[in-house]
Amino acid sequence: MNSSHAVAMDDDMENGVGSYQERPRTFPSMRSKSYVPWIFRMFMGINPRIVFVLLLLALGAVFYIGARSSPIVVFVLSICIISFFFSIYLAKWVLAKDEGPPEMAQISDAIRDGAEGFFRTQYGTISKMAILLALVILSIYLFRTTTPQQESSGLGRLTSAYITVAAFLLGALCSGIAGYVGMWVSVRANVRVSSAARRSAREALQIAVRAGGFSAIVVVGMAVIGVAVLYAAFYVWLGVDSPGSMKVTDLPLLLVGYGFGASFVALFAQLGGGIYTKAADVGADLVGKVEQGIPEDDPRNPAVIADLVGDNVGDCAARGADLFESIAAEIISAMILGGTMAQRCKIEDPSGFILFPLVVHSFDLVVSSLGILSIRGTRESGLIVPVEDPMMILQKGYSVTIFFAVLTFGLSTRWLLYTEQAPSAWLNFALCGLVGIITAYVFVWITKYYTDYKHEPVRVLALSSATGHGTNIIAGVSLGLESTALPVLVISIAIIAAFWLGHTSGLVDETGNPTGGLFGTAVATMGMLSTAAYVLTMDMFGPIADNAGGIVEMSQQPESIREITDVLDAVGNTTKATTKGFAIGSAALASFLLFSAYMDEVASFAHVPFKQVDIAVPEVFVGGLLGSMLIFVFSAWACSAVGKTAQEVVNEVRRQFIERPGIMDYKEKPDYGRCVAIVASASLREMIKPGALAIISPIVIGLLFRILGHFTGQSLLGAKVVASMLMFATVAGILMALFLNTAGGAWDNAKKYIETGALGGKGSDCHKAAVTGDTVGDPFKDTAGPSLHVLIKMLATITLVMAPVFL
Amino acid sequence: MNSSHAVAMDDDMENGVGSYQERPRTFPSMRSKSYVPWIFRMFMGINPRIVFVLLLLALGAVFYIGARSSPIVVFVLSICIISFFFSIYLAKWVLAKDEGPPEMAQISDAIRDGAEGFFRTQYGTISKMAILLALVILSIYLFRTTTPQQESSGLGRLTSAYITVAAFLLGALCSGIAGYVGMWVSVRANVRVSSAARRSAREALQIAVRAGGFSAIVVVGMAVIGVAVLYAAFYVWLGVDSPGSMKVTDLPLLLVGYGFGASFVALFAQLGGGIYTKAADVGADLVGKVEQGIPEDDPRNPAVIADLVGDNVGDCAARGADLFESIAAEIISAMILGGTMAQRCKIEDPSGFILFPLVVHSFDLVVSSLGILSIRGTRESGLIVPVEDPMMILQKGYSVTIFFAVLTFGLSTRWLLYTEQAPSAWLNFALCGLVGIITAYVFVWITKYYTDYKHEPVRVLALSSATGHGTNIIAGVSLGLESTALPVLVISIAIIAAFWLGHTSGLVDETGNPTGGLFGTAVATMGMLSTAAYVLTMDMFGPIADNAGGIVEMSQQPESIREITDVLDAVGNTTKATTKGFAIGSAALASFLLFSAYMDEVASFAHVPFKQVDIAVPEVFVGGLLGSMLIFVFSAWACSAVGKTAQEVVNEVRRQFIERPGIMDYKEKPDYGRCVAIVASASLREMIKPGALAIISPIVIGLLFRILGHFTGQSLLGAKVVASMLMFATVAGILMALFLNTAGGAWDNAKKYIETGALGGKGSDCHKAAVTGDTVGDPFKDTAGPSLHVLIKMLATITLVMAPVFL
Repeated sequence: MNSSHAVAMDDDMENGVGSYQERPRTFPSMRSKSYVPWIFRMFMGINPRIVFVLLLLALGAVFYIGARSSPIVVFVLSICIISFFFSIYLAKWVLAKDEGPPEMAQISDAIRDGAEGFFRTQYGTISKMAILLALVILSIYLFRTTTPQQESSGLGRLTSAYITVAAFLLGALCSGIAGYVGMWVSVRANVRVSSAARRSAREALQIAVRAGGFSAIVVVGMAVIGVAVLYAAFYVWLGVDSPGSMKVTDLPLLLVGYGFGASFVALFAQLGGGIYTKAADVGADLVGKVEQGIPEDDPRNPAVIADLVGDNVGDCAARGADLFESIAAEIISAMILGGTMAQRCKIEDPSGFILFPLVVHSFDLVVSSLGILSIRGTRESGLIVPVEDPMMILQKGYSVTIFFAVLTFGLSTRWLLYTEQAPSAWLNFALCGLVGIITAYVFVWITKYYTDYKHEPVRVLALSSATGHGTNIIAGVSLGLESTALPVLVISIAIIAAFWLGHTSGLVDETGNPTGGLFGTAVATMGMLSTAAYVLTMDMFGPIADNAGGIVEMSQQPESIREITDVLDAVGNTTKATTKGFAIGSAALASFLLFSAYMDEVASFAHVPFKQVDIAVPEVFVGGLLGSMLIFVFSAWACSAVGKTAQEVVNEVRRQFIERPGIMDYKEKPDYGRCVAIVASASLREMIKPGALAIISPIVIGLLFRILGHFTGQSLLGAKVVASMLMFATVAGILMALFLNTAGGAWDNAKKYIETGALGGKGSDCHKAAVTGDTVGDPFKDTAGPSLHVLIKMLATITLVMAPVFL
Repeated sequence: MNSSHAVAMDDDMENGVGSYQERPRTFPSMRSKSYVPWIFRMFMGINPRIVFVLLLLALGAVFYIGARSSPIVVFVLSICIISFFFSIYLAKWVLAKDEGPPEMAQISDAIRDGAEGFFRTQYGTISKMAILLALVILSIYLFRTTTPQQESSGLGRLTSAYITVAAFLLGALCSGIAGYVGMWVSVRANVRVSSAARRSAREALQIAVRAGGFSAIVVVGMAVIGVAVLYAAFYVWLGVDSPGSMKVTDLPLLLVGYGFGASFVALFAQLGGGIYTKAADVGADLVGKVEQGIPEDDPRNPAVIADLVGDNVGDCAARGADLFESIAAEIISAMILGGTMAQRCKIEDPSGFILFPLVVHSFDLVVSSLGILSIRGTRESGLIVPVEDPMMILQKGYSVTIFFAVLTFGLSTRWLLYTEQAPSAWLNFALCGLVGIITAYVFVWITKYYTDYKHEPVRVLALSSATGHGTNIIAGVSLGLESTALPVLVISIAIIAAFWLGHTSGLVDETGNPTGGLFGTAVATMGMLSTAAYVLTMDMFGPIADNAGGIVEMSQQPESIREITDVLDAVGNTTKATTKGFAIGSAALASFLLFSAYMDEVASFAHVPFKQVDIAVPEVFVGGLLGSMLIFVFSAWACSAVGKTAQEVVNEVRRQFIERPGIMDYKEKPDYGRCVAIVASASLREMIKPGALAIISPIVIGLLFRILGHFTGQSLLGAKVVASMLMFATVAGILMALFLNTAGGAWDNAKKYIETGALGGKGSDCHKAAVTGDTVGDPFKDTAGPSLHVLIKMLATITLVMAPVFL
């Protein structure tokens, strides 16, 4: 019955008279000119030659100040510029592919319009909030106290206020661009992958990988170049290291605003995008799959376009901003720790220790490019191996990347971390890096074990669906909660191992105390992130393949093409899940580093040592309670936002099916635009509450306890309570994110496992229970979970920037 | 169609020929002699006169040593003895009621057999583990180091080993008896409530309340008398306060073993009972309600007897052990803190500060008895008000109890906490008590707000069921996560307020530093628990009413009687939920106190000050990560135990429906006994894993980090990491328990709300989704949640007892 309709549809399409062909009427509310952000429009309005000259001049200026600060910065800048050219090559290569038949392009256009429309409104809201927050930061810094020493070193009240605000805004802007780039390429690559799938699976894979690689390299490159340029600019502006000015080892602390700007934008991007994508997905599934029994991405489902738009704004744009922020925060925290350590150890040239993270990520760009290039299409390789598992191909690329990453990491440590005071220290730090790389690898493996249906946990979960919806949910929740154990053990071992490798590196301060411990942990974090660009490529691959599958399904392509995109989609699900394990692992390490940076910052503001956070003090314990509570409430609001929006979608879809009974027989056209509009406005509304909670709570808690401390005579109480809040929130956030991500991924794949025909297959009661699990898992794994990754780093950066408020 | 069957059944019953009447064939596998634990059997085997004389002698001895230690102890003992007599009066009153018609008695017998059978096996297993653990403790204490000072004060290695082990075993034994008593009365009262429901709602209510009151008073009384007797016995044995012996202020630390024994048994009682009751409930619901569409407690459901048995072993026995342990742990920790403070302040007669908690709980027995007596049957009050809301009646009793509790609490502070050094200190502590009482009240209110369908959250949850299973689960999870906010805020305010009231009480140590802060928090905890016996009465009321409803339903009583028990059941659900809020609030405070006691204990073992737990140290941070992870994994295993066992039940019930098609038409009899046997053996098997995790982890973590600290030269590392593990586990445990309890309660009541006819009522799709939520909530609120209450206190006591291992 279904296939006869499909045939009828195909005929319609070929004759060009079917309602699906009437392009202008398809999305009246969404149709608009292709959107280009104002910053690009501004450039595009000017004569191209002038732009070229301006760009060259800017580049020259950047290299000039880079050269004045350190040759290492020049090296970093050069690699970033080369990588940008490489990314342009990748983009051109992808865009040169054909867009396929008009019915594909038509769907792709609708997706692009929806995604760009949402992006515009969302980032409009975010930028307004960012400007408001910038004003708040400005006023806080203008009223803070400074020491005569700070004033004399050129870092007076005004200067530090401007610097922090400028860094914040630049971070926010770059994060926004990173998100836009991620989405820009994915809405263009999706249809090209669909089209290529008609020719060869391998070519489709290659397009998706290169499209993902483009945005990955832009995101990582921008994080690196942003920090490098800021560093060099502040260096030159403040006349660092000239007599009487600020020391180079204190410089990295000024970059914190950049990290905060990045995490601020990433938080709202992830919240808004996450709510959008999952509300549409859950809403579409609940009516389409469960009630009407039509397949995923069926054109008859009025919410299907909203679902496909969601993949782009939720997975591509948000993940781009997320990874950008991860790398920025991690680079800055490692630079701060490197600077502090170099100062304590009186290392002659501390620039190596400070700039080490930038070099690591420059090499990251290089090795990841190698990894991306190692994935070749059939034409280039000359071999046609159609049965090859795409997961294997991606894994091979990952192995290539890791191999070179280990090499270049060792090289960088020898180059930058060699010091005569401790000749073997670089070797210890290289081992720290190895600890990080191994941790990343083990994390990916654990996530796969818990979320891949080749392994026992997901099989047990699928089996529990056979006894009903209830047992499926109980089993999924237990699986998720249990899956926190191994990652926590691994991260615990990694923290302690890296700390002791650093501690025993031979670097000692004036009094002979070993000081390299924390920097060891920082190096391990860098090791973990040393293949970030390739990991992000694999991650971006997921939503592009997912979208391509949707376009194939919606444009009613033959079964054989769907099979190809289905395989790619399934691989994308696995890579998406593994990236989340990777993201949460690095977030755990980065937060621990930022926490140390916070304590140093408070000590330097307060001019007293701040070395301990004692949880036996009742107020500090209460801070911990509040911090953990923050994570629970934030997760609650993120999930309920999806639930509420999904309910609106369900009601709208049900209404359309009732009011337009012809939809099911392909006789009437669903109103896709209304679903898109509903989801967009609802997710913008719903992202505010959890986001505001995350930003306001630490400030309010810090202020309240500062006042309480003032009246009860406890010095630094505000700062201590915030520190404990931060630590407890980090721990609770890591566990909660692991729980949410893994449970969601496992539910998704348990459903997929049943769809392969196990336990009754599609349409059985068992499958229905599994679909319920999948819908519950959607907001877990794609809204609340990834938002928590960002949240815990945002908390760490906001406490750093707001430190003056707590004293 | 259903009612015609019911009529047919009634005819069968009247004629006495229906298969349901054939008593001997009903539960062949379960039928056995009424079970009496060996300790009671032993006494019953002796001539009653001898027993009486022995009892009198024991009483005399107890009073003698009590009088030798302190007149306050005599006062406490007297009140406990009077309360025991009062509880015997209550029990006799309840047992004098009629058991109703034979069909009720028959069902009640089956429930009793099942419950006693499970209790016997479960406590057999638990006692074996307790003896094993006692040997471990013994060997640890025999190899610990002691100071010459300790040796000279009579507290040598051997003595302290014996004391700790004896206290542990006594605590375990008392906890077991508390659990048995709770179950003993409930399996006898249930049928009497059913029978009374045929006459009047008010009488049924009164029977349930008095039965609950009996076990509540026995449980609380036993906790108090146990500690008092141990205290007096150690006092006399060790010759405390005679020259050269140990000081009275150090005595309470010896009682820690008692608390650990109690929490050890409570943990396994709650785990085993919780798994039992919810596996049976979920299994019965999934097939009965969802698949076959038969009502709850329908005699055709083969799992229905197992479900009713579960109410007794899970809710009555386990909650009795839980509250026993709460009170014991709280009394001991407050005694330790009182002793420490009295010593620091050089108070002449510290016994008032030390024995204060015992007096508070003696008054608790008195005021709760008044509250229980204030609930009168219609006959006594002379008024017939059949429409009165039973919740209102219970609330009135609670108000009476609280009123007198405030009075007696003020009295006790003036009596025992008045000291010439700080004449107004007692007033501050009275205010601390008030803080505790208010906190308890607010907690109850918050829980009601989130779980009662009169308020918005549950209504929103019910509405989310209208869009499917998935949105119901998402909304319930969000509701539960969000509901952590208010309790955490309240507990935070309570901790800080009580601490500062104590801090400013005027009690200062030798150097003039205020020292009363922590004791203030302890007094607030006592205030919170000052109505514990009444709260436990309300809690026990729930499962008794639930069982009574089940018996009425199963014995096919007329609709009017079912309505009465349904109302009582619904009230019982609310009181059960509120007690959990109460339990977790007091657990949070008690753990914070035990944490301080742990730090004192470590300091006294290690002979160095141990005042700070600094989470900026990587190992300590890792300890926190591991502690939080422990909570997640424990919850996972508790939930999955229910899920797995429920699946076994589902398969068995399905099998019976297939193999005996006559069951649905009342023509064939389901095999209830098989379900009972399956659930019993599975829950015993499944309780071991989470229980072992909870006991072994802190020991292993402490030992590992002790060794690591040894090699890296960090002193006290094991103790510090365990301290941080404990604090993070406490915080995570509080939040997780709040989440699980509230989500479960809300799901349950959302379903009940729909069953009142809202949103389509029973049988609608909306109702089905709500039933899914309810089944998911079952292990949350009755297995994992309450086990977490016990777990966090068990962790606190195990670290205290095992402290020598970590040094």
